[in-house]
Amino acid sequence: MRDITVFSGSAHPELAEEICAHLGTPLHPVQINRFANDVLEVQLQANCRERDVFLIQPLVPPVQEHLVELLLMLDAARGASAARTTVVLPHYAFARSDKKDAPRISIGARLVADLMVTAGASRVLAMTLHSPQVHGFFSVPVDHLHALRELAGHFRRYDLSNTVVVSPDLGNAKEAAAFARLLGTQVAMGAKQRFSDDRVVISSVIGDVAGKDVIILDDEIAKGSTVIELLDRLRERGVNSVRIACTHGLFAGGAIERLSALPEVTEIVCTNTVPPPKPSDKLTVLSIAPALAEAMRRIHDGESVSALFTTP
Amino acid sequence: MRDITVFSGSAHPELAEEICAHLGTPLHPVQINRFANDVLEVQLQANCRERDVFLIQPLVPPVQEHLVELLLMLDAARGASAARTTVVLPHYAFARSDKKDAPRISIGARLVADLMVTAGASRVLAMTLHSPQVHGFFSVPVDHLHALRELAGHFRRYDLSNTVVVSPDLGNAKEAAAFARLLGTQVAMGAKQRFSDDRVVISSVIGDVAGKDVIILDDEIAKGSTVIELLDRLRERGVNSVRIACTHGLFAGGAIERLSALPEVTEIVCTNTVPPPKPSDKLTVLSIAPALAEAMRRIHDGESVSALFTTP
Amino acid sequence: MRDITVFSGSAHPELAEEICAHLGTPLHPVQINRFANDVLEVQLQANCRERDVFLIQPLVPPVQEHLVELLLMLDAARGASAARTTVVLPHYAFARSDKKDAPRISIGARLVADLMVTAGASRVLAMTLHSPQVHGFFSVPVDHLHALRELAGHFRRYDLSNTVVVSPDLGNAKEAAAFARLLGTQVAMGAKQRFSDDRVVISSVIGDVAGKDVIILDDEIAKGSTVIELLDRLRERGVNSVRIACTHGLFAGGAIERLSALPEVTEIVCTNTVPPPKPSDKLTVLSIAPALAEAMRRIHDGESVSALFTTP
Amino acid sequence: MRDITVFSGSAHPELAEEICAHLGTPLHPVQINRFANDVLEVQLQANCRERDVFLIQPLVPPVQEHLVELLLMLDAARGASAARTTVVLPHYAFARSDKKDAPRISIGARLVADLMVTAGASRVLAMTLHSPQVHGFFSVPVDHLHALRELAGHFRRYDLSNTVVVSPDLGNAKEAAAFARLLGTQVAMGAKQRFSDDRVVISSVIGDVAGKDVIILDDEIAKGSTVIELLDRLRERGVNSVRIACTHGLFAGGAIERLSALPEVTEIVCTNTVPPPKPSDKLTVLSIAPALAEAMRRIHDGESVSALFTTP
Amino acid sequence: MRDITVFSGSAHPELAEEICAHLGTPLHPVQINRFANDVLEVQLQANCRERDVFLIQPLVPPVQEHLVELLLMLDAARGASAARTTVVLPHYAFARSDKKDAPRISIGARLVADLMVTAGASRVLAMTLHSPQVHGFFSVPVDHLHALRELAGHFRRYDLSNTVVVSPDLGNAKEAAAFARLLGTQVAMGAKQRFSDDRVVISSVIGDVAGKDVIILDDEIAKGSTVIELLDRLRERGVNSVRIACTHGLFAGGAIERLSALPEVTEIVCTNTVPPPKPSDKLTVLSIAPALAEAMRRIHDGESVSALFTTP
Amino acid sequence: MRDITVFSGSAHPELAEEICAHLGTPLHPVQINRFANDVLEVQLQANCRERDVFLIQPLVPPVQEHLVELLLMLDAARGASAARTTVVLPHYAFARSDKKDAPRISIGARLVADLMVTAGASRVLAMTLHSPQVHGFFSVPVDHLHALRELAGHFRRYDLSNTVVVSPDLGNAKEAAAFARLLGTQVAMGAKQRFSDDRVVISSVIGDVAGKDVIILDDEIAKGSTVIELLDRLRERGVNSVRIACTHGLFAGGAIERLSALPEVTEIVCTNTVPPPKPSDKLTVLSIAPALAEAMRRIHDGESVSALFTTP
Repeated sequence: MRDITVFSGSAHPELAEEICAHLGTPLHPVQINRFANDVLEVQLQANCRERDVFLIQPLVPPVQEHLVELLLMLDAARGASAARTTVVLPHYAFARSDKKDAPRISIGARLVADLMVTAGASRVLAMTLHSPQVHGFFSVPVDHLHALRELAGHFRRYDLSNTVVVSPDLGNAKEAAAFARLLGTQVAMGAKQRFSDDRVVISSVIGDVAGKDVIILDDEIAKGSTVIELLDRLRERGVNSVRIACTHGLFAGGAIERLSALPEVTEIVCTNTVPPPKPSDKLTVLSIAPALAEAMRRIHDGESVSALFTTP
Repeated sequence: MRDITVFSGSAHPELAEEICAHLGTPLHPVQINRFANDVLEVQLQANCRERDVFLIQPLVPPVQEHLVELLLMLDAARGASAARTTVVLPHYAFARSDKKDAPRISIGARLVADLMVTAGASRVLAMTLHSPQVHGFFSVPVDHLHALRELAGHFRRYDLSNTVVVSPDLGNAKEAAAFARLLGTQVAMGAKQRFSDDRVVISSVIGDVAGKDVIILDDEIAKGSTVIELLDRLRERGVNSVRIACTHGLFAGGAIERLSALPEVTEIVCTNTVPPPKPSDKLTVLSIAPALAEAMRRIHDGESVSALFTTP
Repeated sequence: MRDITVFSGSAHPELAEEICAHLGTPLHPVQINRFANDVLEVQLQANCRERDVFLIQPLVPPVQEHLVELLLMLDAARGASAARTTVVLPHYAFARSDKKDAPRISIGARLVADLMVTAGASRVLAMTLHSPQVHGFFSVPVDHLHALRELAGHFRRYDLSNTVVVSPDLGNAKEAAAFARLLGTQVAMGAKQRFSDDRVVISSVIGDVAGKDVIILDDEIAKGSTVIELLDRLRERGVNSVRIACTHGLFAGGAIERLSALPEVTEIVCTNTVPPPKPSDKLTVLSIAPALAEAMRRIHDGESVSALFTTP
Repeated sequence: MRDITVFSGSAHPELAEEICAHLGTPLHPVQINRFANDVLEVQLQANCRERDVFLIQPLVPPVQEHLVELLLMLDAARGASAARTTVVLPHYAFARSDKKDAPRISIGARLVADLMVTAGASRVLAMTLHSPQVHGFFSVPVDHLHALRELAGHFRRYDLSNTVVVSPDLGNAKEAAAFARLLGTQVAMGAKQRFSDDRVVISSVIGDVAGKDVIILDDEIAKGSTVIELLDRLRERGVNSVRIACTHGLFAGGAIERLSALPEVTEIVCTNTVPPPKPSDKLTVLSIAPALAEAMRRIHDGESVSALFTTP
Repeated sequence: MRDITVFSGSAHPELAEEICAHLGTPLHPVQINRFANDVLEVQLQANCRERDVFLIQPLVPPVQEHLVELLLMLDAARGASAARTTVVLPHYAFARSDKKDAPRISIGARLVADLMVTAGASRVLAMTLHSPQVHGFFSVPVDHLHALRELAGHFRRYDLSNTVVVSPDLGNAKEAAAFARLLGTQVAMGAKQRFSDDRVVISSVIGDVAGKDVIILDDEIAKGSTVIELLDRLRERGVNSVRIACTHGLFAGGAIERLSALPEVTEIVCTNTVPPPKPSDKLTVLSIAPALAEAMRRIHDGESVSALFTTP
Repeated sequence: MRDITVFSGSAHPELAEEICAHLGTPLHPVQINRFANDVLEVQLQANCRERDVFLIQPLVPPVQEHLVELLLMLDAARGASAARTTVVLPHYAFARSDKKDAPRISIGARLVADLMVTAGASRVLAMTLHSPQVHGFFSVPVDHLHALRELAGHFRRYDLSNTVVVSPDLGNAKEAAAFARLLGTQVAMGAKQRFSDDRVVISSVIGDVAGKDVIILDDEIAKGSTVIELLDRLRERGVNSVRIACTHGLFAGGAIERLSALPEVTEIVCTNTVPPPKPSDKLTVLSIAPALAEAMRRIHDGESVSALFTTP
């Protein structure tokens, strides 16, 4: 296989630039045309023949546009005789659609995995998938990285002796427990209850949180409604302070402002798997570009990726 | 196979309602949720088990959103045990991406055909594909209807003795010639030339148009730039009057207003394969709902579709 | 499609007989030969042509033998021109291998799903999959039933005012919470910690259990080590009484005796998705044959399955 | 990937020899046996393991024999562990069957593309496909060359100031226009009309041809009936002289003699994508072996092919 | 599924007519066009929508033409929305290419099976495949009939008390033994030895044949060279008389005349799986049309085929 | 492609060790876990990325366990990004299920071939398949070795002037004839007859054996019943001495003792494709490790395998 050749879709070019800087390889341009009838067309602007092609595209809003753009890039790379095409997927938004919890819905995470393979994906490099089972939705090899290492590195600077990690959701409980072990703290979690189609409440918090310094951990924060609901419960139970941590900081609809406005929230930490919000006082953004670059280098060189990035 | 069950995506519910009225079958609702992270989820709101399911969705703007919505509907129908799922595709916008006329681009029309099959399409009912070869991009059976019959029916009310059909593009020449034969008129055509990446001009008009009543025929009008360019050339050659006809009347960016403002244009005729623009003086919209409904009935009943709708 | 035709592999013929009695259809025999070189061969002993074939086979020990037997039955049904072949999989043992939590392991739940499709499975009827995401591992339609309704029906006969449902594992927390909601009780859960490759302990119990009547809920109990470990933790926290409930009661290696011997355990409840252990004082076995038979009838008749068996 | 290894089927060994001479690589023999029951068997006579195998076979008469021979060669190369097998297809005769213009016919160009992939084709190198959309019928990468460059090089030696390029068919109009731009001339075209199943006439010539030196351009000339029909029309319109150009000069059934006999025809130019007819006074055969050899070298070396051979 | 619809390719229309007469269903015409460039196109001349389509085509010389014709018919039936397409393959000439007995050859019997499935075959009805393993080369259901019953019915009219069945080849030994058991006779066989690429001799006859009335049984006789070679060996061993029997009587290159000219040959018996040779004194042709028609009826009606046609 | 990396399943680690010793490459460990519910999980204990992975696993008893283990290893290698995964299959037990000789049975040899490809096999290295047609059941390249060379080398040390090779079965007759040619001897064979479902007898021996030194050749000996039956017939015909030879010496159920106890049997020769029985006086085990190692080296290096191991 010949040289590594990296392209970025329009979703997050800054991350792609940072990754390429770490790799010491150029980021090649992609021309994206929108025809008068709104159809997208992409043109990869560098030779792909027999190259080890990487396409970087987190599925951030507008998600459907970015997905189709990615599928067109995959098809173009295949048609252009790429030796191998790896999708670098720092944020796989469809991963949340991972089960059929209502009749006659799509399991979007499986469907989109199949679409990528149909379009020409040889392999996938993903980060903090919503559930670990989503790995198995892909019929091509997946390298699944976690940002827990980066997040833990950040929080270890603090005195954690009175700290508890809290998951807003039972579905994320194992991840929170793993993070707590990395930090040497206890763990607790909220239990959600769905009252009607559009009203979900956190009915209880399981585990001790009174008087504690809390780190709320979630994989993804979009509107932040669940976290705000959890904060109400934590406040009732008399927590001491709250820090919020997540891998995918989407912060849609003014979420960062609403969360920052709460006095007990002292810090909000996320990574740059998605384009980060505007800088703000309480916000800390960690870069996962070094981790992705190192994984890409190892994928290209045939070195073990698991050796570096095993989940805790 | 059990009963016919029809759903419509969000692209053109009015057309779906009209088709169902002709079929005498209810149009079942589809619930489309957009999650906080912008991911779509669809739920088909009627039992699909062992049914002959039809999903109506022209790929109109926002095209990428409507495509992903359609793919999710297909996957949901398959997961819900539909006996057969037919995509009714009155407008296949990607059909214009039917060849590789630049290096390292996607052939979108083939890719999207494959994506639909991956998502669960058993067959496709299409209308006026940009080129007849696009039929062969699908690996499932396609019924390909034309609106030439409907358009010809409309124009036959006029005195056509001094009329010539003009195609704005050599690529559409065969279609224009077929239409001219239906009307018993002559045919002419514009020849486009590309001067640079973003400047296309119609350099010449091949065939006699001076003093003629012209019917410009195209498969699709979006911004209308090509038609306006052609009108300049026709004006120079001294045509008598101009009518404009197309199957897919997208009329993006105020096209209907710009075309209506030209004095020699006496009428603009399109069909409702896509949601029609607001009513206006010079605009006539023909309905293809009866044709689609009849084709769907024949597909369901196992009757010959070609018997009815052969291309002229 | 013609008549329903049911076969059972050698894994659990009693359940198949009971299902067929509910359906009012005969259970057809399967001849299983083992050649001198240990290779299995199966012969379906009734005509399958154009029939709606159901193959009943929970993957119980010896699991690998029963899996290969099932794959051979699927291939035989396809070769014998079955119109459709549904795998009735009351227990999908491989569902526990649903993620890649160590490098260079197989995701067995996905692999075996693919093997069944390769061998000819048209669809799957499953029960209480280890995680709901496993549904998405199948590329054919899956109907996924739960036994929570049956289990809840049993426990509602008791006074549950002082009861808490406890999950032995955070991974099963959502299921336990759903069960608690069905019963109107609180929920708590154990948090496992892995100390070395072969030593897992439940390090903490999250939620209040002191003085409570506990119902331990798990999807599957094999050797029962986790439950016994949890019982140690519950005993330390002073619970009042313990009942144990699970869907898949494998009870390997004398588990039923070891659990029954514990004085605080007053009842062990499971279903007959797998062949139940010998009757014993504290053991109650609920039958899921009526639920499976009703689902099979609806699948055959094209009626909605979700209407009956939605997860709580 | 290891060395390039080239085989030729029995369709056009002279072209294969010429290509290999340009590449400086031996042409390896293929033994073709015909059994007593008329079945073909092929044996590739050189080691293919991990080689970059190229199979050269234009689909010339007997087309069906040469197609099956090619499919057998593909299967043999796969079974012999070729690293990659490229079909070099200087003439893809089935490309004319590219649309469904009658009910219940095969789209042969798509079918045969799928057959080649089933038999083991990794990629295709094609020349002047009947329509550019045929590219999209292949699910493997295609490099699509044109002979317009070679043909234009030949005609530029003449004074072209009074010349017009004429396409016998509207379907070939875009190609003719591109060729005219290369030569700096005007363009015109014939419009075919089908009167009955077996009678097609060119009813009109669109564009000015009176007094002109005409170059008729078609992709393929077989019996030459269409060209002869066009010549009648051109003669009526008083053209000055006629030259005939095509890529694929099949010249079946004495076509070369019939065309040469016409006094206004001064030259017939084709390439050697198919075995050329016997030398004759008015016939000029251009070699596309250098172009194919250079494309094969670039495919093997992973260099851009589009850089060299972009369509005008 | 709707009505049975039968088409015949050009290989053996007489057999197709005879089958349809037995079925009491019309044989629908197929129009086969050969374009000027020698490409075939087929058009099925009756509605196929949702029909149970059967395509009858033995692969007789010209084999490659008939194969491609069959593949085009399959594709046309799929594109025309057939509910199911069964290939009726009375003679599968490629079955002789069933193993890789030389390096870098194709296994034609597997390849062609895959090509048929790619082209749209849902199932296959075959007769006397060269080896029973060829059944397993198809990925779709196969019904495999034998003509031994018909052949045995014919020979039972004779006094068989001094008869031995002789196979010309060890590879056909099991079939010969089965036939001998049907007739209640002994069995013997020739052993071929290959001296060079093009010289095969029968070096020995294994079993007693001196003074016997011999029935030579082979699956297929083409040029008859092997049978003539065997007759030399049998003559040397002093056999009393010889009858020759085969399922597929191709009799290429004057074979029937050469065999008839031998004085010890008293009868040559074949079936009409392939078009029979001109009537001649010693030739008897048995019809397998009733057997094929009955199998087709049972396939259509979903009745057991094996119940009727089990191999002895 | 990078280095060769060899793993062995649990079926025959001694053979794998011997092969690796010949290759001069380490045999990497595989950890096989059996969960409490009897499900297997495998972990490959060395980096597979971009390696040329070989998995050695003959399908010996318990066959079904070893098959599933192999499928899990294949899936693990694919998920671990192996560049190519070759199954080294010294004994393919399912090869005996190569035809459908009863209604509604599986063709196990084809099914299991497909399962391996589904699980990720890129190619197969097999030894002495039960019939040569089984080669064609695989859709990936197969290298098919024979042990006849090794067996012949052993027997050539004896005076073979009075020797005849006897096949116990007509189905193995061609193999026996090939072996006889290698040794320069005559050939004879037993003819089996099936009297009822469970009683098979050798009714006759075809060819001369009286007074001869016999070498019985079979591909596989399991319980040895057929050989013992043949020995009865040979004894009746007054043979002088008997040696027994086979490739796959399974010797199940005390077969080696029963065969050794017969006085006319002077030697039993097999290879180590399967774990050999305990040493015993009359038993000789030949190693095929050198042949397999050389084939693996050639597969890895892209050298011709057929050049070395052509069947005689």
